[in-house]
Amino acid sequence: MSPVPTLRYDTISFFSDYGTADEFVGVVKAVIRSLSPDAVVIDITHEIAAHDVRAGGLALARSAQFLNPGVVLGVVDPGVGTERRHVAIEVGDGASVLVGPDNGLFASAVALVGGATAAVELVNSEYHLPHEGITLDAGRDIYAPVAAHLCNGVPLTNVGNAIDPGLLVPGVLPVSEFEGETLTAEVLWIDRFGNVQLNIGADDLEVLGDHLRIEVGSTIRAASRAASFDAIGPGAVGLIVDSYGLLALAVQRGSAAEELVVSAGDAVRLTPTSGNSRATTPVSLTSRHGDEV
Amino acid sequence: MSPVPTLRYDTISFFSDYGTADEFVGVVKAVIRSLSPDAVVIDITHEIAAHDVRAGGLALARSAQFLNPGVVLGVVDPGVGTERRHVAIEVGDGASVLVGPDNGLFASAVALVGGATAAVELVNSEYHLPHEGITLDAGRDIYAPVAAHLCNGVPLTNVGNAIDPGLLVPGVLPVSEFEGETLTAEVLWIDRFGNVQLNIGADDLEVLGDHLRIEVGSTIRAASRAASFDAIGPGAVGLIVDSYGLLALAVQRGSAAEELVVSAGDAVRLTPTSGNSRATTPVSLTSRHGDEV
Amino acid sequence: MSPVPTLRYDTISFFSDYGTADEFVGVVKAVIRSLSPDAVVIDITHEIAAHDVRAGGLALARSAQFLNPGVVLGVVDPGVGTERRHVAIEVGDGASVLVGPDNGLFASAVALVGGATAAVELVNSEYHLPHEGITLDAGRDIYAPVAAHLCNGVPLTNVGNAIDPGLLVPGVLPVSEFEGETLTAEVLWIDRFGNVQLNIGADDLEVLGDHLRIEVGSTIRAASRAASFDAIGPGAVGLIVDSYGLLALAVQRGSAAEELVVSAGDAVRLTPTSGNSRATTPVSLTSRHGDEV
Repeated sequence: MSPVPTLRYDTISFFSDYGTADEFVGVVKAVIRSLSPDAVVIDITHEIAAHDVRAGGLALARSAQFLNPGVVLGVVDPGVGTERRHVAIEVGDGASVLVGPDNGLFASAVALVGGATAAVELVNSEYHLPHEGITLDAGRDIYAPVAAHLCNGVPLTNVGNAIDPGLLVPGVLPVSEFEGETLTAEVLWIDRFGNVQLNIGADDLEVLGDHLRIEVGSTIRAASRAASFDAIGPGAVGLIVDSYGLLALAVQRGSAAEELVVSAGDAVRLTPTSGNSRATTPVSLTSRHGDEV
Repeated sequence: MSPVPTLRYDTISFFSDYGTADEFVGVVKAVIRSLSPDAVVIDITHEIAAHDVRAGGLALARSAQFLNPGVVLGVVDPGVGTERRHVAIEVGDGASVLVGPDNGLFASAVALVGGATAAVELVNSEYHLPHEGITLDAGRDIYAPVAAHLCNGVPLTNVGNAIDPGLLVPGVLPVSEFEGETLTAEVLWIDRFGNVQLNIGADDLEVLGDHLRIEVGSTIRAASRAASFDAIGPGAVGLIVDSYGLLALAVQRGSAAEELVVSAGDAVRLTPTSGNSRATTPVSLTSRHGDEV
Repeated sequence: MSPVPTLRYDTISFFSDYGTADEFVGVVKAVIRSLSPDAVVIDITHEIAAHDVRAGGLALARSAQFLNPGVVLGVVDPGVGTERRHVAIEVGDGASVLVGPDNGLFASAVALVGGATAAVELVNSEYHLPHEGITLDAGRDIYAPVAAHLCNGVPLTNVGNAIDPGLLVPGVLPVSEFEGETLTAEVLWIDRFGNVQLNIGADDLEVLGDHLRIEVGSTIRAASRAASFDAIGPGAVGLIVDSYGLLALAVQRGSAAEELVVSAGDAVRLTPTSGNSRATTPVSLTSRHGDEV
């Protein structure tokens, strides 16, 4: 190898809905390596369900705080061939740049790290692969080469035209809502082990209390706060503040998703009970929702 | 790390039918790293269907133009334990070397880049891992160490005996054929998104015209040329020149393979129609097949 | 990049039951890269069945002799949230260190390389990621940062308190047993291609002879020693000393596991026959089990 050059960014964090059965991921990495040989690619995941922008955005948001500064390359793009824009979004005044489609995929992660400080539409084909006469593969032909050139120090303003970061397509993260004392939440994610992550932070769980009735579809179950997976107890449904700081439904050494027959995107209704008696807990009525008593 | 050495090749592009559930891929990489620590391995895919030489060869052919110069390591080998040869095939007068079984796996890719300029049979066990008394794992015991040694600068002629590149096992790429005005083609590949790639280039599509009747099994559908996936229109089957320059059948935001009930290797018959009337288009009869009118 | 530092270990071999659908593997790599940017991670496999410590331990044991010296990072941990210890186990007087849960996951591999020369419990949170108020993800929050710090040269004794290696949780590798002339063995592993690996070494196969009756569940089949997969012959079940030196049941170009309807962990009974006549072979009675005639 030649002497190691100084890179503007030395890490590309890459996620997609490409799967790994085809050669898409490998080709993107080959394109990157041909243009910026010393940039290191970290695969976040490539098994986002095909075209599921919501799931891709959530995976990135969960990962964001752990990623290396550098370029994030994201490809989940149902609008292949349509007129949605290809963009690069700068955060942290240049600490990192996110490259991919302008379809909300990056919105949650960008918000988590303080918002975009600049954005460009990737219209400068000088930094793309040629693809005359064939259908564009945006990941291979635009995002990969742009990511590599950004690593090499090409300024953001060279790869495209500045656009207003405030006009990027927003994400569609669901917000949980109280009706009376019942909080209607949504399943964000079922992880590999069947844990059911909800869009409820630790603060909301404080309001709800430690003993809840949970309803999902036609299933109704009691669930109690547990400090760890093993503290849930056999046969019970536990409420855990998971390793991302969000409320998750879990069962001991099994799949809560299977037991509750629940999928990502499903609505879950949570209502306070007081342990055995299931009376409402006053704390949920006064601290945040006194007006709804 | 010690000072970075100068490598003859610094990239190994690796594809196989190993899957990733077992440790095969990791062990091959460990063997490579132990012998050539600074060589970088790019995984193309390891999910080629077990023993499917045709699918492996097509994945490599699709990737070939994007890969980095260096070593290509391919393992799809139904003849484990049989007498097929282990080979290294040089292309581009040494620009790259393909290492793996002599079973046609590399034939299409080699042809695409101009043919082999040299080849050897890997009979020099000095560059293999020892495997006395156990069944040979050719990927681990031969191809991986040979690939690493080639990166380190061992000459091709040292790792084996020169053989005639013209006697390498050929690939079995299907050729599409006209009968009258009907072109009988074959499904090369169903991608992750259900697009159906055929062995028909853009030139053939010019001959066929923009409106076709397609028959696959007992399914008959009309299909029209579309400039992009989104231009196909809801409910229609589109004819796209895909990102590899081949004709693909696609539907908007769905799986054409599911809709047409078609698999890799299936025959597809395409007959010109003229838009609504389905009359034959003269162009298909004169430019290439005038004698078949 | 800054000048390349000298690392104590430059390779982390990583295996887990994380799967690759979620971002767990990517996040662990990002954590490692943020702390030890030049350490290289080799993925062994991440598709160990969820919580299957036995399968994870076997995959590591099969890989052990091929891995690079350095850190082994293993995460298969049904006891998430319980009181099992987090440990680092040194082998070869510091040649390598295995980092993960103390649940037997590493036991077979450690034994294969000569046993542990030191061990610590990972109680020094100075080398962990902070995780206040959320459920611990041991792979991300403890094992990944400890692995990175060990690569950087932090001494083993700094990351935790020394513990007696003899008190680490042992593995549960099954031992095959003779009853009379019948050897009852266990299926260790079904590989990608359906080959059925048993806990029987080449030495035991010498005792059993070349022609056996095998019983698994209600299936009874004859099987004969074969020098290679292709030597098995159509329709027959072959006995192969596989590429790990263990006895495997195999069929030609097909899945022995499917044909015999057998899974990992199943018992298999093997009884000597003499080729066609199925008489017992004297060798199996005298060399090791003469007293059982």
